[in-house]
Amino acid sequence: MQRRPFLATLGATAAAFTTGARAQEPRRAGKKLGWALVGLGTLSKNQLAPALQKTKHSRLAAIVTGTPAKAKEWQEKYSIPDTHVYNYETFDKIAENPDVDVIFVVLPNSMHEEFVIRGAKAGKHVFCEKPMANTADECRRMIAAMKEAGKQLGIGYRCQFEPHHRECMRLAREKVFGPLKFIEAGFGFQIGDPTQWRLRKDLAGGGALMDVGVYALQACRYLTGEEPVEITAQETKTDPVKFAEVDETISWSMKFPSGVIASVMTTYAFNGANFFTAICEGGRFGMDPAYSYGGLKGWTSKPEVKIEFPAIDHFEAEMDAFSQAILEGKRFEPAGEEGLKDLLAVEAIYRSIKEGKAVKVETV
Amino acid sequence: MQRRPFLATLGATAAAFTTGARAQEPRRAGKKLGWALVGLGTLSKNQLAPALQKTKHSRLAAIVTGTPAKAKEWQEKYSIPDTHVYNYETFDKIAENPDVDVIFVVLPNSMHEEFVIRGAKAGKHVFCEKPMANTADECRRMIAAMKEAGKQLGIGYRCQFEPHHRECMRLAREKVFGPLKFIEAGFGFQIGDPTQWRLRKDLAGGGALMDVGVYALQACRYLTGEEPVEITAQETKTDPVKFAEVDETISWSMKFPSGVIASVMTTYAFNGANFFTAICEGGRFGMDPAYSYGGLKGWTSKPEVKIEFPAIDHFEAEMDAFSQAILEGKRFEPAGEEGLKDLLAVEAIYRSIKEGKAVKVETV
Repeated sequence: MQRRPFLATLGATAAAFTTGARAQEPRRAGKKLGWALVGLGTLSKNQLAPALQKTKHSRLAAIVTGTPAKAKEWQEKYSIPDTHVYNYETFDKIAENPDVDVIFVVLPNSMHEEFVIRGAKAGKHVFCEKPMANTADECRRMIAAMKEAGKQLGIGYRCQFEPHHRECMRLAREKVFGPLKFIEAGFGFQIGDPTQWRLRKDLAGGGALMDVGVYALQACRYLTGEEPVEITAQETKTDPVKFAEVDETISWSMKFPSGVIASVMTTYAFNGANFFTAICEGGRFGMDPAYSYGGLKGWTSKPEVKIEFPAIDHFEAEMDAFSQAILEGKRFEPAGEEGLKDLLAVEAIYRSIKEGKAVKVETV
Repeated sequence: MQRRPFLATLGATAAAFTTGARAQEPRRAGKKLGWALVGLGTLSKNQLAPALQKTKHSRLAAIVTGTPAKAKEWQEKYSIPDTHVYNYETFDKIAENPDVDVIFVVLPNSMHEEFVIRGAKAGKHVFCEKPMANTADECRRMIAAMKEAGKQLGIGYRCQFEPHHRECMRLAREKVFGPLKFIEAGFGFQIGDPTQWRLRKDLAGGGALMDVGVYALQACRYLTGEEPVEITAQETKTDPVKFAEVDETISWSMKFPSGVIASVMTTYAFNGANFFTAICEGGRFGMDPAYSYGGLKGWTSKPEVKIEFPAIDHFEAEMDAFSQAILEGKRFEPAGEEGLKDLLAVEAIYRSIKEGKAVKVETV
């Protein structure tokens, strides 16, 4: 009746008897890469650390924070030794810690470039939250640094690992409803605390577009499998005090090379937009809500085609996928180029708003 | 057990015994205004004439057509005497026909102005299909002519009489889901016959926007109860042969004075867009399909708030509402100003596309 202990024993015994190259396989498959979380904000606290308790190929190995009280709290909660705690000054010593395989940069957007490049110089693989950076040029320097270090760079596009989204990509790419013609997409929410870094241009680079608009932008890009060539955008500000530095609501239109048009919006001013709709020649499908951490729902215009999957932890999925790619020596996607492509579109959106006209999107 | 015949007899008897002013009431309430259909295309044939068999206050009295074969067919089908048949040359003699109260202009858009003004000069009330005309200036001249004639001008915005739409207007205007924040709307279809007048700029004035885009535009205007102040639009053409003269797909963004933004699209290239979604501070509601002649569906984000009504004949409703307004001496809405306001937005959309930038919408 003790099935699990028995099998575990059998596995250990089998491993003990193998030698040489073959012996490494079970060891490598069983190894969990050590992750260091850089920045212990709400995402790290509420999503990433809990996810790292469930991951199969990843484990929380170290923390980097500028707040000693947070370090103490985390050390106690996750049994992290003093040797695995860094602040932003001591961060580079992480190079000497063999227990850390991956640096996860969870800092305000403006700090991504610095810490990705410092991570590269420390000889670690780096995973970076979206948006990858504040500008395309920052992305380019980050990609170059990682390439020079010969390490992998992954971007935290969690939806790309989520089964509803993956199924929608398949429906679009395999033309299950015929060729894709039009995408409507939007993601926004009513932002709270007016003092947070997300409302500061120097830290966040922008507002709703940088934070949540990129999800809707991503959806358009991965449904089409194409890069937008022309963008027309319009910004609206109803609260010029709260949104003195960053964008509040933006709606934009993107033309893709195949003729697909995407009409997209993002906002920090209200809840309710959290969707995409793909209109194809032979039907429609979409998700609503589409970008939340859970409770996602897919739908199609054909009763016989359903988009239904069990809920997963998006963060567990993305981190394990990154670890697995490293363990198996495969290139991880979405990599830095994916983040760069988003930023090129984001820059085109801001440029279109500033110039008040349609603009071409720069290419990689 | 013969309840209905009994009540009918009672009604007739009661009417027979009333005299003077009171006697006129049942007579006036019972009077059906005579409608002349100008242009016997598919809308007249498949929608308007059948609707006029059901209307309570309106009846098909006369026809105006340039095709003698059509006249013959219609005369036989609807028992229309020769004295009530006109062509585009003899049209003005309709002034002498006391049996015709209302002229319904169902011609290609470019002919609306001429026949509305000739209808005004004939001393008739005029009902005109949407879009009201090809330009705002045409609308202004039509309004002026009707004002001079002292007759009513109604525009065929059938959705304004449809109960799902009316309920959505109420939900938005009464802020049942809190203040309105954002509207997504779209209407389009894959147009067939490449030789039809709708694809000729001289006759239709434009393409999808003029024909079906105005429905989505209208929805944004009557949900907000406001006029857009700024518009950014983008056009896409995937079939430059079929759409050599008119627009194929347009997406545009409109800013309203209250801060509401509408993201709207229209197309002649594909089916599937036939909706609006209203995002409010406390929830969402919308319709999909929204603009078809039947089968409309409303939805809301709150299970306790439903948008469910029996199907009605939109054309029957709009024509009877016009007749009723005339019979009761009340001003009919939507009147010419409503058509003009749509055209001002339409012109801004085309101007934005041409100039490749955000433009202000002209005011009435």
